Amino acid sequence: MVETPKLLAAVDLGSNSFRLIVGRVEETAAGHHIQQIDAMRDPVRLGAGLGEDKHLDEAAQLRGLAALERFGERLRDFHPDRVRAVATNTLRVARNAPEFLERAHRALGFPVEVIAGREEARLIYAGAAHTVPPIDGRRLVVDIGGGSTEFIIGAGYQPLLLESLYIGCVSHSLRFFPEGAITEQGMRQAVLAARRSIEIIAGQYRELGWEQSIGSSGTARALAELIEDNGFNDPDVAHGITRSGLDKLRRALVKAGSAQASKLVGLKPDRIPVLPGGLSIMIGVFDELGIDYADITDGALRLGVLYDLMGRSSRQDMRAVTVEGFMQRYSVERKQAERIGALAVSLYRQLDARDDAAREEGGMFLAWAAALHEIGLSIGHSGYHKHSAYIASNADMPGFSKTDQSRLAALLIGHVGKLGKFTHAAHVDWSWLFCLRTAVLLCRRRADVALPDIAVRESRHGYEVTLPRSWAEANPLTDYSLAQEANEWSRVGRGYRIAYADR
Amino acid sequence: MVETPKLLAAVDLGSNSFRLIVGRVEETAAGHHIQQIDAMRDPVRLGAGLGEDKHLDEAAQLRGLAALERFGERLRDFHPDRVRAVATNTLRVARNAPEFLERAHRALGFPVEVIAGREEARLIYAGAAHTVPPIDGRRLVVDIGGGSTEFIIGAGYQPLLLESLYIGCVSHSLRFFPEGAITEQGMRQAVLAARRSIEIIAGQYRELGWEQSIGSSGTARALAELIEDNGFNDPDVAHGITRSGLDKLRRALVKAGSAQASKLVGLKPDRIPVLPGGLSIMIGVFDELGIDYADITDGALRLGVLYDLMGRSSRQDMRAVTVEGFMQRYSVERKQAERIGALAVSLYRQLDARDDAAREEGGMFLAWAAALHEIGLSIGHSGYHKHSAYIASNADMPGFSKTDQSRLAALLIGHVGKLGKFTHAAHVDWSWLFCLRTAVLLCRRRADVALPDIAVRESRHGYEVTLPRSWAEANPLTDYSLAQEANEWSRVGRGYRIAYADR
Repeated sequence: MVETPKLLAAVDLGSNSFRLIVGRVEETAAGHHIQQIDAMRDPVRLGAGLGEDKHLDEAAQLRGLAALERFGERLRDFHPDRVRAVATNTLRVARNAPEFLERAHRALGFPVEVIAGREEARLIYAGAAHTVPPIDGRRLVVDIGGGSTEFIIGAGYQPLLLESLYIGCVSHSLRFFPEGAITEQGMRQAVLAARRSIEIIAGQYRELGWEQSIGSSGTARALAELIEDNGFNDPDVAHGITRSGLDKLRRALVKAGSAQASKLVGLKPDRIPVLPGGLSIMIGVFDELGIDYADITDGALRLGVLYDLMGRSSRQDMRAVTVEGFMQRYSVERKQAERIGALAVSLYRQLDARDDAAREEGGMFLAWAAALHEIGLSIGHSGYHKHSAYIASNADMPGFSKTDQSRLAALLIGHVGKLGKFTHAAHVDWSWLFCLRTAVLLCRRRADVALPDIAVRESRHGYEVTLPRSWAEANPLTDYSLAQEANEWSRVGRGYRIAYADR
Repeated sequence: MVETPKLLAAVDLGSNSFRLIVGRVEETAAGHHIQQIDAMRDPVRLGAGLGEDKHLDEAAQLRGLAALERFGERLRDFHPDRVRAVATNTLRVARNAPEFLERAHRALGFPVEVIAGREEARLIYAGAAHTVPPIDGRRLVVDIGGGSTEFIIGAGYQPLLLESLYIGCVSHSLRFFPEGAITEQGMRQAVLAARRSIEIIAGQYRELGWEQSIGSSGTARALAELIEDNGFNDPDVAHGITRSGLDKLRRALVKAGSAQASKLVGLKPDRIPVLPGGLSIMIGVFDELGIDYADITDGALRLGVLYDLMGRSSRQDMRAVTVEGFMQRYSVERKQAERIGALAVSLYRQLDARDDAAREEGGMFLAWAAALHEIGLSIGHSGYHKHSAYIASNADMPGFSKTDQSRLAALLIGHVGKLGKFTHAAHVDWSWLFCLRTAVLLCRRRADVALPDIAVRESRHGYEVTLPRSWAEANPLTDYSLAQEANEWSRVGRGYRIAYADR
């Protein structure tokens, strides 16, 4: 099959199931729209492989890799720009996530990015807002996943409140319903534990308020189907989840003692292990937020990833919006940031050609790093580069995956100071560091002083910076700083040579 | 000697020398004023004992402890509220500072607090502003210490710009003038290295500008005296440091090859090892900031500590101002902070009596922790308590020592979540944690709900919380949370019992 340029694909490595969707971008009078044309699902239950020690066991990894290989086959002809694979809570917390992500990359044929909880919430809302009919007021979207649950209030396409809590149907089922046994006491504890988590955000959400409640995950769809199929809803309600429907389902499960034994109509085998946990969280959500009825949608996260991907290629990159917002929030000195960004990118362009995608990516990251390298000053002056990196690692950065955030943080912490901290880092782009550090060094005056033509190149001996001899002689301080910089590179066994051009 | 209530003492554990001053608070028509009445000094050169591995060697520690014992004798009758001992750069960076600080406490009889660079700068300015004649415009104070140099621009008593850089006369002398040998090349490198550090802040300082330059440290005084005594100043300048005086001193030292061999008039033996480093930094300051002439004052840090101490007892505690500023900067939800603070402090008052000073301190820290516990939300929602602690550990917090900041950070990171992180912490006040956590838990609704009378006490079995049975039954979620909290305490081997009162 030859790929048409308008196909996009999203892979969602959830804590319960792995899913793939392929969508086609369609132009309509109202703008671009994505039509889902293909989908695959595998009930991996990755979260169940997460032990007490936060180590993801081999069996779960193998289940996941098998699913990714199947997906990879479907995506074989896709350009990397048109596929995005995201992983959520289980891979956020697993200590051995880095190894699994490498294996996942090989199995799928595309890199897998871990996204933070609130980024997940943002994408879920984007997906949901494109699938449910528009309403005038605010809507609440609740997405009970395998390892985390997202809560979003939004209006139109705009999220207003975003939260992600560490409760999910896989972990809750394992914790409160061991071996699948459902007791009244276990159900009560499970609901209270869910409410206890939600309690923290409930006040803020109730205060903002909403007109429409939507359950957006596989859990919500499964609960709605069970309630409908078993006639647990009130007679006047055809679809969705009602409070009384949840109560009837709860009673039926407690009475049966397990989902397996419940003989519920329409219960799918792969839902059995996660049903009691999912139900108890949904009851906790209804109780704590005072919900009587919720509509259902599905696949919100995956669809949100597709819309985000479409935005990046059409120059509505959420990441650029985020960087701009951070510059304002942290009162970044804009002129200095722009000066360094422009110089770093121009140095980067001089280095030996790589492929276009890598060059574009390097340019973007260098510009972002220049924009954000001083955000840490907001915390403190001493060691501000560490604070900048801390913020970039931990902040909610809409559009950025956790993977992006680490790469950015590496540039921020490395823009000055010792290089030794990177000698054991697996994924550091030395060319990026070279360009950023050299630009920062040359702009230390923080003023628009005329810099001479500076030539850089990379050879097998390392990096080389050539500057006019006369300028170097007239600027002994910069020359001294460059010599110190060369020393620093030699300390980590890398070349950084300064050459002088006679004119 | 019987202490009069108006005596205050400051001990300064500098990287070059340790000093003690005793001052008497005098009331004048213009307000309170401190008259220095006694002083002691010991040229410990603590910074010279700091190895490449940032380990403070035993010889330097013993020199320091001997000095502190002498000071301790002088301070024997002082109340702890009236003595403050602060340590600066060497103890900021030494890896084994905690052990030394314990020994120092025993030797001196009072705890020693490490202060951050910018806090040092703030105190220096406070001291300098009280000793130099008032002028109309802005003044620049430069304090070249043994391990760090502070730069402050201020107007009146108000600092406007504060910086602390990692250059000092002890470390610079060791690095560029090994064995005291002074060469033209070494001097050139030393000046360039100093300029390179100053370069980063120079733009901002020059932009704000100043009318008067002041050198405030022992280094500045020693340089000024040498320049005066050897007739290196221009004939029309009687005191202070001039550019041409520095140049003449530099030439004399390079020509002699060492300070020892220089036969300079008035050179004190204990200044010899740090003279070339101090001189090169001062030349770097003059070059980089474009200074021609600097006035001299001395003892600024110690005097600043005294004025700060006087402020604390007269209800002008800088720390309260800082906490208020942080609440604004980080948009803290004030009502919630006040709710938790009031409850935590009231629980703390119920615990068995300790001495008054400890009770007052606990109340202050609990109120500050409540005020700041959510500042980390400004970075990110997930794990915000860690971000709050990160900010409190790393931010510039005027009035707080590094020691204060760590105690505050422990409360912030510990106000929710697992307690296991404290089982190996040497200095954690469990009573503070108990009161803060219990208050946070009871205020989770974030609303002014009426809480019942809650009684707490501490026994040899641990903490006990008593609440009305009827209220607990009506509030199952809070009751559940308290039970979870009790579990968490038992996990670290500490008692937390919940009791129910029948009315």
